[in-house]
Amino acid sequence: VSHFKLTLAYDGATFVGWQRQAAGVSIQGLLEDALARIDNGPVSVAGAGRTDAGVHALGQVASFALRREIDPETLRRALNAHLPPAIRVVDSAAADARFHARFDAKAKTYRYRIWNDEVLSPFERSFVWHFPSPRLDIQAMDTAARLLEGTHDFASFQGAGATTATTARTVWSSRVTGGPLITYEVCGSGFLKHMVRVMTGTLVDVGRGRRAPASIAAVLEGQSRACAGETAPASGLFLVGVSYESPDVKCLSK
Amino acid sequence: VSHFKLTLAYDGATFVGWQRQAAGVSIQGLLEDALARIDNGPVSVAGAGRTDAGVHALGQVASFALRREIDPETLRRALNAHLPPAIRVVDSAAADARFHARFDAKAKTYRYRIWNDEVLSPFERSFVWHFPSPRLDIQAMDTAARLLEGTHDFASFQGAGATTATTARTVWSSRVTGGPLITYEVCGSGFLKHMVRVMTGTLVDVGRGRRAPASIAAVLEGQSRACAGETAPASGLFLVGVSYESPDVKCLSK
Repeated sequence: VSHFKLTLAYDGATFVGWQRQAAGVSIQGLLEDALARIDNGPVSVAGAGRTDAGVHALGQVASFALRREIDPETLRRALNAHLPPAIRVVDSAAADARFHARFDAKAKTYRYRIWNDEVLSPFERSFVWHFPSPRLDIQAMDTAARLLEGTHDFASFQGAGATTATTARTVWSSRVTGGPLITYEVCGSGFLKHMVRVMTGTLVDVGRGRRAPASIAAVLEGQSRACAGETAPASGLFLVGVSYESPDVKCLSK
Repeated sequence: VSHFKLTLAYDGATFVGWQRQAAGVSIQGLLEDALARIDNGPVSVAGAGRTDAGVHALGQVASFALRREIDPETLRRALNAHLPPAIRVVDSAAADARFHARFDAKAKTYRYRIWNDEVLSPFERSFVWHFPSPRLDIQAMDTAARLLEGTHDFASFQGAGATTATTARTVWSSRVTGGPLITYEVCGSGFLKHMVRVMTGTLVDVGRGRRAPASIAAVLEGQSRACAGETAPASGLFLVGVSYESPDVKCLSK
């Protein structure tokens, strides 16, 4: 038995999300199917983050065990030959038998992209939230974003139907930059269901003047989904990377 | 009657090409259908360049006449509301009644993108030619590319089934840069069917050492398709822009 840690990039536009489901094509499903062919039997894969339908990844991490012995580099090439071009294994490494991509994750970084101008490039249409108008106040959004940094109960930012035991999380870095391509980048210990998308929807409310930046404190205190803004579309969201070091050095240096 | 000049960007991946055809969805067809709805009757559109299936545009130009009077900016917004997000009208202007997007074009710029490394980003899969190995010699490719500059008979670079009266064209600028993302940018008076793609296939032969850079002169002299390299895939090709000034200033300044 050999254990692996894979890093994957994918264009989520045409998938039902990371997680295998009864209907539709998932990234986990395609990866497990490809591994089953390589290992001549079923393989169960754990992913660091369950990205939703339409959400993309630059550095999703997956862990699993194979019956056969195989060189990580050979495995990477075999998987890229089996998987569609919308999913690429960018790194493959041998892992400790105890390594679990989700349970061992210490930090995740997400990036949300908004195109805040009238005409959206046809090449960006699956990779941003197109918010044509009004012009968003980036400074106000960044001020609000920074108020999300710290250890908080993020219950207000959790999507409906989530079954998480605790809603306390630590956000180390939460910053908004740019315009007309606006980037919201957030790094934290973990994220609740839809958390980054609800944060983004709330920050856009701030950017368009519907909420004051300081109101973020009240949204956190309210501990109710109704206090936060709308859930931003999946298309603009990227899982940038997952870190297994704590505290996360890359994250803290921001 | 009012006359217009439109500039369009499109992701060509899902279309049968610019030109309306018996089967499949074309950019010209979608544009004519949208204009017919706006003008309450059939509209015939001329495009500057007939991009093939899978070829993209950053600055395709189209001309046409409408029965109704309409402000160019209003027309642009109406078209973008009717067209799919894969096609965007980026500019709209009133044109002289005699203006014809194809016959009046003085220069066109095309860009061909090659990804010369093993793993291709999932986000680039429709927008490059993935050429994983061997590593291409950019310097040799650029030397060869420059030998295509000038006024030549480009019959060797014309795809099968073309019906052009003359195969002489002037190329003002032909340059290869980069690596591992290699960009071939070429500007000229006009281009034969598949000409940029056959030029690219020939330059890749040079880059991999199958042809010497100086052999380009013999390819031109041969005046036969058999003398040139393979036709590079459509996915890497972009119509960057069309100029109606002569000599083309942007082109000559390169």
